[in-house]
Amino acid sequence: MEVFLECLPCTLRQAVEASRMATDDRELQQVIMEEAVRLLADFTKYKSSPELGRAVHQLVKKRTGVQDPYKQIKQDSIAKALQLYPALKEFLAEKQDQLYWALKIAVTGNTIDAAVSNEIEIKEQVEMELEKEFALCDLAPFAEELRSAKQLLLIGDNAGETVFDRILVEKLAANGLELIYAVRSEPIINDTTLAEAYASGLEQHARIVATGSNVPGLILEECTPEFQEIFKTADLILSKGQGNYETLGGLKRGIFFLLKAKCAPIAALLGVKVNDYVFFRS
Amino acid sequence: MEVFLECLPCTLRQAVEASRMATDDRELQQVIMEEAVRLLADFTKYKSSPELGRAVHQLVKKRTGVQDPYKQIKQDSIAKALQLYPALKEFLAEKQDQLYWALKIAVTGNTIDAAVSNEIEIKEQVEMELEKEFALCDLAPFAEELRSAKQLLLIGDNAGETVFDRILVEKLAANGLELIYAVRSEPIINDTTLAEAYASGLEQHARIVATGSNVPGLILEECTPEFQEIFKTADLILSKGQGNYETLGGLKRGIFFLLKAKCAPIAALLGVKVNDYVFFRS
Repeated sequence: MEVFLECLPCTLRQAVEASRMATDDRELQQVIMEEAVRLLADFTKYKSSPELGRAVHQLVKKRTGVQDPYKQIKQDSIAKALQLYPALKEFLAEKQDQLYWALKIAVTGNTIDAAVSNEIEIKEQVEMELEKEFALCDLAPFAEELRSAKQLLLIGDNAGETVFDRILVEKLAANGLELIYAVRSEPIINDTTLAEAYASGLEQHARIVATGSNVPGLILEECTPEFQEIFKTADLILSKGQGNYETLGGLKRGIFFLLKAKCAPIAALLGVKVNDYVFFRS
Repeated sequence: MEVFLECLPCTLRQAVEASRMATDDRELQQVIMEEAVRLLADFTKYKSSPELGRAVHQLVKKRTGVQDPYKQIKQDSIAKALQLYPALKEFLAEKQDQLYWALKIAVTGNTIDAAVSNEIEIKEQVEMELEKEFALCDLAPFAEELRSAKQLLLIGDNAGETVFDRILVEKLAANGLELIYAVRSEPIINDTTLAEAYASGLEQHARIVATGSNVPGLILEECTPEFQEIFKTADLILSKGQGNYETLGGLKRGIFFLLKAKCAPIAALLGVKVNDYVFFRS
């Protein structure tokens, strides 16, 4: 999916954020920003926004030597989400349409981020977000495909959100489905890697695999042959978040996308409003 | 004041916004963004963020031939503010400390922007913002200097905010003060020029002058000799908004700054939180 013009300031904002997290050296931060801007000048050469994002975040890593600037943030997000985990289970237990609400819980995990500062705030925010229903919802075709599926590949997104995904994974596994949970192969922004998926307890009901891709999304040609085989043979694929959609949305095979539309270009593309939750089959 | 690293994504966001407002030609928008990024690569050469902003907005004007991309937005902001004007007068009339609240009304005008979509929303938002008190407030020294001042130079900021300023201008003029209201000499973003100041009714109690400067701020060396003289001889100077602070904050002469801290670097510099209102003497 093309790099939208709006991706440029957004990527540059991430460069500021990542460089400030990776180093306190103001001169180095400035050097990084100068290089990030030069890199952005070639934006038309990138096939998608996640590829451009990877280039910028790799630049920060290279210049600072810090391989995982978001490590602490990822750990904090998981810790906060784990505190919410019992309440999420309880929330689901009270619902009639378990599949719908397990999906809604998983997508709501997308709202957890570093901006939310304390426990009460986060709990209130999550409760509010949970009640918002989907703007697009292909629940019926998903339920239909689920009936005959033996295996589901879930492509993860952010750390913290992983704990919310666990609720969905537990629900699906309880129905006898074999679950594979895919994660990035290297730290990139606050996306989940193997470490964060395990820290979230996902291994209890799913096989966790690294894709081989290190973009904040998933570029199939860059994945390991093992993952490509999993992708090819999975009965059902469920992809979380915008980054995965931006890199997988153009593929021929049908994929269920579960995400919060976080920016204007993606919302416009999907015909929804910014911050709407969507669940649809490509 | 230096160009902060955060100014880079913010300026680029403005480039997207302005180019979309000036033209529907997607190829032209892309060309503008490519040039805007190249321009940003030299950010260390700019003395302040408003100077960098000017360069980007001039690029949009030059490439599209549209001299005032924000014209409609400015007119809409003024129309919305004029609808609020009677309520603002009433709000002030009920207050004991008239000077404090006239200043608070003027700074609250800073919240009016294109993002607010309808009348009820805008009225509610303004009412909420009006009640928030200043995080910094040099009211006493201002009141003291006001006592002996014959003339006050008010340096305006955005269109729409101009109507809120009118409440303050009326209040000060009623006390016998001579008011001069300074505006940008050319359209730049949604800042007020002569046209918007007149459309806001400011000429009834103030002499409106164009500064000669066309940055979204005020660079004294670029101003007309007439304005430089006004600036030099004014008994009191009151400057609105961040852009004016970023370009005037380093001058030796004491200036009262009245603004909403809209971004992290400025808030940090002032020791306040983002979205706090401040009124202080340099």
